[in-house]
Amino acid sequence: MAIKRSQMVRDHWRSMTEAAVANPNQTPEEVRERVERSWPGLTAEPGGVDYLEVEVGGLPALWAVPKGAAEGRVIFSVHGGGGISGSIYTHRKLFGHLAKAVGARALLVEYRPESHPAPLEDTTAAYRWLLDQGVDAGHIAVVGDSIGGGLAVSTMLRAREQGRPTAAALMLISPWVDMTVGNETFETNHEKEAFFYKEVVTFLASSYLAGADPRDPLASPLYADLSDLPPTYVQVGGHETLLGESLQFEQQARKAGVDVQLEVFPEQQHTFQMAAGYSAVSDDAIRKLAEWVRPKLGLG
Amino acid sequence: MAIKRSQMVRDHWRSMTEAAVANPNQTPEEVRERVERSWPGLTAEPGGVDYLEVEVGGLPALWAVPKGAAEGRVIFSVHGGGGISGSIYTHRKLFGHLAKAVGARALLVEYRPESHPAPLEDTTAAYRWLLDQGVDAGHIAVVGDSIGGGLAVSTMLRAREQGRPTAAALMLISPWVDMTVGNETFETNHEKEAFFYKEVVTFLASSYLAGADPRDPLASPLYADLSDLPPTYVQVGGHETLLGESLQFEQQARKAGVDVQLEVFPEQQHTFQMAAGYSAVSDDAIRKLAEWVRPKLGLG
Repeated sequence: MAIKRSQMVRDHWRSMTEAAVANPNQTPEEVRERVERSWPGLTAEPGGVDYLEVEVGGLPALWAVPKGAAEGRVIFSVHGGGGISGSIYTHRKLFGHLAKAVGARALLVEYRPESHPAPLEDTTAAYRWLLDQGVDAGHIAVVGDSIGGGLAVSTMLRAREQGRPTAAALMLISPWVDMTVGNETFETNHEKEAFFYKEVVTFLASSYLAGADPRDPLASPLYADLSDLPPTYVQVGGHETLLGESLQFEQQARKAGVDVQLEVFPEQQHTFQMAAGYSAVSDDAIRKLAEWVRPKLGLG
Repeated sequence: MAIKRSQMVRDHWRSMTEAAVANPNQTPEEVRERVERSWPGLTAEPGGVDYLEVEVGGLPALWAVPKGAAEGRVIFSVHGGGGISGSIYTHRKLFGHLAKAVGARALLVEYRPESHPAPLEDTTAAYRWLLDQGVDAGHIAVVGDSIGGGLAVSTMLRAREQGRPTAAALMLISPWVDMTVGNETFETNHEKEAFFYKEVVTFLASSYLAGADPRDPLASPLYADLSDLPPTYVQVGGHETLLGESLQFEQQARKAGVDVQLEVFPEQQHTFQMAAGYSAVSDDAIRKLAEWVRPKLGLG
């Protein structure tokens, strides 16, 4: 039996569902370890990328430096994991692929797996750190997947609030931008989704909010004033329960005057780009992100 | 259910057995991809280690550089994988843990997944490359696991033949040093072993030898003249079918005048050190390797 490369991400999320059903009382630590051990297996090694750890604001961060990368261009990368899991290591290869495709280094930043606003405080501090290194904001692109997508947006909103320059571009991979968990695609895509059922996302949102307002614009950037966001490119899978909020986010951003575009990848699951290097559809998505962002970083 | 950390390696090998039983016609490429995807999940990220790719003899190699590593000391690291699988990436974290524990950088070398003598030619070229970088042989330790252990020994034998200096120390993790597959522990540990049953190892040996003599001393260093090998430390699991050849290798090395020591880790499987960072017994084994090798590298 050949390994079904196009189904790898779906199979991964199904295994997460099976583990949750089999062990309804698993602790956050157990979930975190399961994710840490299994998620990286979805992504092939890009090869030709060096990885250098650095401490940023008391947390580890990881430079992913493709051989021959352009100087002074940085992809500021915020990983997903529902706010309770994931790390610079689970996403090392994914953002390594993107960095290699763009021809620029990536900075993978870490944040405390705690409730709002701790993660945003950490990504905001990391973004400020990057500017303090002397990197021109016009040479920075920000990318995030899942809750990392929401944090990527909020990090830009915070920068704007604090009078710091925003990045040249924003790339959102299956972004989670609405903590109300009210979108109709939770119902319409329920049968197609492999893990992010309404009850799962409700649990994650409750954990992330810890009592905060689900419409807090920095926790749920769908409800924020999105004007002045950098040019934004959203990728989302057609089978995701989170599809609806990506569609809404694109509409809101467009209304706010943002140069935004969205692509729905038919039949794909949440963060299907994780199968980069194994699955053609994932590689295609990475290539599209790179082609879109290169001119915005002055890489022609 | 907590993840059974002490059983992680056994569970991994059992899953390899199950996959082989379920798919008796899996191709070498499928095995390679399965190993590449699943093996790294056994090992926790050591953290605080940088990874830098370099080309050595037309093949990729990987420097694993712990923060604060001693200058000029190198752990030359040869991965296992039965000769058909494994890579500098499957073993990145394992040798990263060892490098961090020792406080020296590791050079993970690659070799063609082909039959003898191609892998040995590649590791020999890589060892020569390392000497050509100006690293003192007295500041090099060589480590290998499984077939990488056999290759580690043969690389030293070849260096001796070619008049090059051998390293200061040799660390063998569950080494596979006998292609005759004739040891009695294939029978006595059959029920305890999780994957390396006689038929599996016979298949791998046949593939590796491709018609060569199974007693060729460079393919099966158990049959080599082991005199003048560097001080050697062997670690092996008590439940391995390969246990017997480790015991024989220690005897042969001792007879040849080598400063050799061996430790059997009770109830452990092949390359149980892979669970470093998760399993206490793995961490203990890594710590013992590091404590043994540090003085041999002049690290006190």
